[in-house]
Amino acid sequence: MENMPLDYKKELEKAAKQMILIHRVDTLVKIILRTIVRMLKIEHASLILYDKIQDAYVANASRGKSGLKIPKGFSKISKDNPIIRYFTDRRPQGPGLDYLLFDQIECSTGPLYEEIKNQFLLYNAKACIPGFFRNKLIFALFLGEKLNREDFTPEELGFMSVLSSDTVMAVQNAWLFQDLNEQLQKNTRLFLQTALALSSAIEAKDPYTQGHTERVANYSLVVANELKVIGRIPKNEKNLLENLRISSLLHDIGKIGIPERILNKNGLLNQEELKEMKKHPLIGANILSMIDEFHVPILGIKYHHEHHDGSGYPEGLKGEKIPLIAQIIAVADTFDAMTTSRPYRHASLSKEEAARLIESEKNKQFNPIIADAFLNAYKKGKIQG
Amino acid sequence: MENMPLDYKKELEKAAKQMILIHRVDTLVKIILRTIVRMLKIEHASLILYDKIQDAYVANASRGKSGLKIPKGFSKISKDNPIIRYFTDRRPQGPGLDYLLFDQIECSTGPLYEEIKNQFLLYNAKACIPGFFRNKLIFALFLGEKLNREDFTPEELGFMSVLSSDTVMAVQNAWLFQDLNEQLQKNTRLFLQTALALSSAIEAKDPYTQGHTERVANYSLVVANELKVIGRIPKNEKNLLENLRISSLLHDIGKIGIPERILNKNGLLNQEELKEMKKHPLIGANILSMIDEFHVPILGIKYHHEHHDGSGYPEGLKGEKIPLIAQIIAVADTFDAMTTSRPYRHASLSKEEAARLIESEKNKQFNPIIADAFLNAYKKGKIQG
Repeated sequence: MENMPLDYKKELEKAAKQMILIHRVDTLVKIILRTIVRMLKIEHASLILYDKIQDAYVANASRGKSGLKIPKGFSKISKDNPIIRYFTDRRPQGPGLDYLLFDQIECSTGPLYEEIKNQFLLYNAKACIPGFFRNKLIFALFLGEKLNREDFTPEELGFMSVLSSDTVMAVQNAWLFQDLNEQLQKNTRLFLQTALALSSAIEAKDPYTQGHTERVANYSLVVANELKVIGRIPKNEKNLLENLRISSLLHDIGKIGIPERILNKNGLLNQEELKEMKKHPLIGANILSMIDEFHVPILGIKYHHEHHDGSGYPEGLKGEKIPLIAQIIAVADTFDAMTTSRPYRHASLSKEEAARLIESEKNKQFNPIIADAFLNAYKKGKIQG
Repeated sequence: MENMPLDYKKELEKAAKQMILIHRVDTLVKIILRTIVRMLKIEHASLILYDKIQDAYVANASRGKSGLKIPKGFSKISKDNPIIRYFTDRRPQGPGLDYLLFDQIECSTGPLYEEIKNQFLLYNAKACIPGFFRNKLIFALFLGEKLNREDFTPEELGFMSVLSSDTVMAVQNAWLFQDLNEQLQKNTRLFLQTALALSSAIEAKDPYTQGHTERVANYSLVVANELKVIGRIPKNEKNLLENLRISSLLHDIGKIGIPERILNKNGLLNQEELKEMKKHPLIGANILSMIDEFHVPILGIKYHHEHHDGSGYPEGLKGEKIPLIAQIIAVADTFDAMTTSRPYRHASLSKEEAARLIESEKNKQFNPIIADAFLNAYKKGKIQG
């Protein structure tokens, strides 16, 4: 490779190396094409990539001044495409199929070569380099003409083959990452859906609270985002949104331990019943207490009935002693309770009236910062049940 | 690089490339060391690798005929180690620190060089090659003497530097994979723990069923493993264990919808109460019905009271019409119900008596294959509450 300028080779090697840590296939392809176009000084480059879901090849990206600008994912290419077929059919005979040149094709005869020639013309390509993983064709890379109109040197083509196999490994790696990430997201979604389903099942015992859990979760997240925007989330509150999502979905889970005669009572609760009802935050915290990682969500469940002025329950915590997550759920929970009617409460209020009550409870029931965040979100129309 | 034998260079390039898809750091290090020893024809090679948790370096592996055989994870090396310090301190001045040779060190004077020399002697090394990610030293690779006693050529050292930076990227990539995988495992664990906590909370309403959910889950998994061993799990049953784990933990979740006066009744249930109680499989299936991915676990919840001969509920399904997952939970559930006393049942049986009843219910209540799998596991002492 002594004929090649060193910086060009170094640059491409560096690009190949950095690809490994890019775990989005589309970004990966864009970067590699851009680097090839710049360093090889060619008019353009494009790539067709295997797509698992479609079990076909997709024209994935095109970079450079000229050449086909294919809208992403636009062009689905079947496995019957002559170029795909050419590489796929010949691969089992052993490696050595490092590239295909337009000049070679022009000199060959036969119907397959005619078709391949048409493909080269379509992609406006002078060379095509396959990318194999074992015997599977992962992609075909099309190189446009060099700006100086010269032919590709054997060294350049050899180096492109090496780069191509590096790209194959990077693509495989990115696919594995994407799979793992999708599974992670799926698991998280399943978890939250299950928590919601179970909370709803508990709500089903209390006909007055239909949809309460879901609304409280939504309101809580809106308030947290509002706090984030104005920079009022302390730095030591890691994963607040994630914890809040879990905590708000499970905040009333302790009602599972409240006798039905109290949950379903048609009318105001008496002193003794109220005392029983007020156990639900502790029961809920208790249910999940074995799960170490739920340390923070449990705080939201345990303390969402504490008041800023210390008049709440179960512990009568005051001000900043109340965990942030519980302060947020408290406002969201109260607003929803006020705007839906319950047997042991007054009739439901309009949203406007409830907002005014939240305002008037600043420094009493609620931390003023949290109440303001809620009210700001309300004014922006973000508090929607 | 024209002085190097081509196959040696190719081999190392291939090794570097394949590293990307190895997502266990320890395996990665072993493979790369083995390849280096074989291809460079050196006595041995070893590597000290940064460890995030300890925030220190750990002598990770040693390969080759001679040289230190360091037990894995044995030797923790502080950041104050002279070699670490040498590379770390000089790095911000720019790259170019591609290697350090014992011969250079011997000619240098000063206390740091004395210390470095001692390290080289300790690792019985002739060369040390650092691996940086940005300005962070990820590892130091120690190369033993060449078998032919010659010095390393500049080409060999240059190539080792390239290989080293490939290894850095592969290690980074593997670390990211490990993190993602740990998160996935953590999420799954949290989900299952939460499901168990909530099921236990429902059990808490029914004092006779303490620990029932956990035992049924355990028994079910034992039966599934037994079926797996004897090859009786159909090929189309994907993720049976995973689905069974979720389904068994939630199989009685529908009891959330059964009135307390029935759940808590001290004595046998009357006809009307029994009818109500028998709704719990459908209620449970209903609660989770919105979650598409729970299609299979829901079948276990819905049909775990069906009988092989069609005499069960809710649908009176017969034989193979009963989903496998439900057949398994049915045996596990019945065995646990028989061996713990319940108000609406006879007094509890001994495990031996219960096993005999399972045997006698083959082809009646139970699919004989599932019952046999359970009884085999029981005989092996695997059915432990």
